Amino acid sequence: MIRADLIVTELAEVATLAVGPVPRIGAAMEEVGIVPHGAVAVADGRVAWVGPERALHRSVRLRAGASRVEGNGGILVPGFVDAHTHVLFAGDRAFELPLKAAGLGYAEIAHRGGGLYSTVRATRSATDEKLARETEARLFRMAASGSTAIEVKSGYALTSAGELRLLRLVPELARRTGLRLVPTFLGAHAVPPEFARRPDAYVDQIIRRTLPEVARRRLARFCDVFCEPGFFTVRQSERILRAALALGLGAKIHAEEFVFSGGARLAARLRARSADHLLRAHPADRARLADAGVTVVLLPITAFASSEARVSPGREFVDAGVPVALGTDCSPNSWVESMPLVLAAAVHGGRLTPYEALTAATVNAAHASGLEDAGTISAGRPADFALFPLPSVDHLGYRFDAIPTVVYRQGKPVSSR
Amino acid sequence: MIRADLIVTELAEVATLAVGPVPRIGAAMEEVGIVPHGAVAVADGRVAWVGPERALHRSVRLRAGASRVEGNGGILVPGFVDAHTHVLFAGDRAFELPLKAAGLGYAEIAHRGGGLYSTVRATRSATDEKLARETEARLFRMAASGSTAIEVKSGYALTSAGELRLLRLVPELARRTGLRLVPTFLGAHAVPPEFARRPDAYVDQIIRRTLPEVARRRLARFCDVFCEPGFFTVRQSERILRAALALGLGAKIHAEEFVFSGGARLAARLRARSADHLLRAHPADRARLADAGVTVVLLPITAFASSEARVSPGREFVDAGVPVALGTDCSPNSWVESMPLVLAAAVHGGRLTPYEALTAATVNAAHASGLEDAGTISAGRPADFALFPLPSVDHLGYRFDAIPTVVYRQGKPVSSR
Repeated sequence: MIRADLIVTELAEVATLAVGPVPRIGAAMEEVGIVPHGAVAVADGRVAWVGPERALHRSVRLRAGASRVEGNGGILVPGFVDAHTHVLFAGDRAFELPLKAAGLGYAEIAHRGGGLYSTVRATRSATDEKLARETEARLFRMAASGSTAIEVKSGYALTSAGELRLLRLVPELARRTGLRLVPTFLGAHAVPPEFARRPDAYVDQIIRRTLPEVARRRLARFCDVFCEPGFFTVRQSERILRAALALGLGAKIHAEEFVFSGGARLAARLRARSADHLLRAHPADRARLADAGVTVVLLPITAFASSEARVSPGREFVDAGVPVALGTDCSPNSWVESMPLVLAAAVHGGRLTPYEALTAATVNAAHASGLEDAGTISAGRPADFALFPLPSVDHLGYRFDAIPTVVYRQGKPVSSR
Repeated sequence: MIRADLIVTELAEVATLAVGPVPRIGAAMEEVGIVPHGAVAVADGRVAWVGPERALHRSVRLRAGASRVEGNGGILVPGFVDAHTHVLFAGDRAFELPLKAAGLGYAEIAHRGGGLYSTVRATRSATDEKLARETEARLFRMAASGSTAIEVKSGYALTSAGELRLLRLVPELARRTGLRLVPTFLGAHAVPPEFARRPDAYVDQIIRRTLPEVARRRLARFCDVFCEPGFFTVRQSERILRAALALGLGAKIHAEEFVFSGGARLAARLRARSADHLLRAHPADRARLADAGVTVVLLPITAFASSEARVSPGREFVDAGVPVALGTDCSPNSWVESMPLVLAAAVHGGRLTPYEALTAATVNAAHASGLEDAGTISAGRPADFALFPLPSVDHLGYRFDAIPTVVYRQGKPVSSR
């Protein structure tokens, strides 16, 4: 008999995302393991039992002082894993919007003090406390939207010491928020102004100085590169990612958001953990990514906010057998915190089914983030889940602005208070 | 000296949207009347005073038992006016999404029990109480997102008695929620199945039977028509709207969402209160709409969810001097309740500035809905406003998922409890 310190009952549906001994990653995303009228029991911060509510009393006893949460006919889903964020920054770039409305391009906006380098300036000059405070507020709002694990990239310092400082803040933010944060080193987010005329020297600095330090101090799980014209070439990206792999980090790549470049092909060649964006990927590369086991992280709000294409792919990758994950890509350029909105954009724009979008935002995003025990509701796994006042799981992705009633991380309600 | 029963202080900015004796409607949308470090005083449900907080104590005294709300450095904006909704329906259409993902078209989805007529079936068979309960929940969530006035269309009954029933529910919903609801008769939402072979007979029924009853009982402020191929022709739309105008109702039209048809031109010819959607409008018709004083209601989430274009216009209409308003278009086809998300879509997709989007979602939407005293913060007007934990007003439209901390209608917090 299981002794629980929390049970959740009176639910229309529980989505376990655990359909076998190991959650299925990838193409077969239809089956999300729905338990109608399901219930969940938690003990010591982990899921102790999940099944139909009518079977609960046969398997579970409440410990003294245990809590019972009533789902009011709503749904319970695993906490979302946000597989791609630039959430660690200072300041904002609202001032750019009238310039964009007036039709100014990226270079003109940068000339007027905007663009990525304006966030680099704000981030470099911010104190640790200011950076942590501003980022913490974003992370808590992400959690209030249902996310319990979040990948966090560095990339707005673009100096060796500055990037290390950003990565050191990640465990501090995890401590403050209670969330699972996955640090990714993105020193190659852009060529810093100091290296504008000698970008290869910056690549050398990353490879010889910063990356070894990141690895030695275990400051990041992954290394990522922004592989686009004007940022880093495929050749530079390959040098950085091979160095990272040799040091034991996982490889991620921002590929083909703006142009078809061979970035997706590089991801396949390196068997990268993920290739992200892919708005301009060549159809022939889908099979390469599938064969190499690369997860594609799609960022549909960024596509809407920034690209001419306006819509991120989705269906094409699923149909090609590529594992698809989702992320907010929260950044000062496209400031979105809500994974339910990302799911809706992936469904209505990228033509995923709601169940595929949920898989992409949970188990697949967990895999893309190296968190193999996240993204499911199954016995022994962390009790990270969200309750939504929705009549069925497929309303996630259907409705644009679903908000959870409560979100649990390790069996405790997440709260910024 | 003003005697207030509520004051709101410690705000970074107040947007009054009242820049002159009469709020400016239309092209000049830059000036939203920002009061830095502003404060607002409320008496008897109306705004009694608005100005810089440092001037508050010279003008305002608190009544006994008055409340003081601290803005924590956030912003205060007028409650949004959602200028276009189909929020009064029963059921949902989440089941269509896998069909859409599989590439099925409208006709095939309808054949499998989906589409608009499936909502007509659900709405016709729902009891008043079920309809009111489901709609009330949506309205409360809209209010929680910052909307205090909402236009509500009929249109999912498509019988004379059924449409009248829907319109009679609107004042009941206003009573239950405390929100300002503007009823619009949309009997011409689609040709009902019973009239499939003789659509003109349905138009005749609307003109001879339903509209006169709507007018006699004062059940609607506006009459709207879905003017698209397969729905109602420009000629049929003109007949219906002329009949409505003759009965004293205002005219609205769903025009050129799918094809260029002359619907926008009809709106200009009739000097309609609003022309809505306009994804396929001809550029030359912008001047016609501006000259005729027609407000264009843009619905950017619907454009993203349903259209091939994916993006609603915005900039083009503002630059042509057309007053632009915004709405959620909340319906079972594109279920969105949050006006802040609509603002962000209008900014990032339609290239409005954040201030233009705010104007479109407040004073301009109020004008489109016939509520000339809504959408501003000014003395004597209803104290309908939202507080957001944002550092400046232009973060509305910049950020995709802003959520108010509290929303006031007639000086009282809106709450579904």
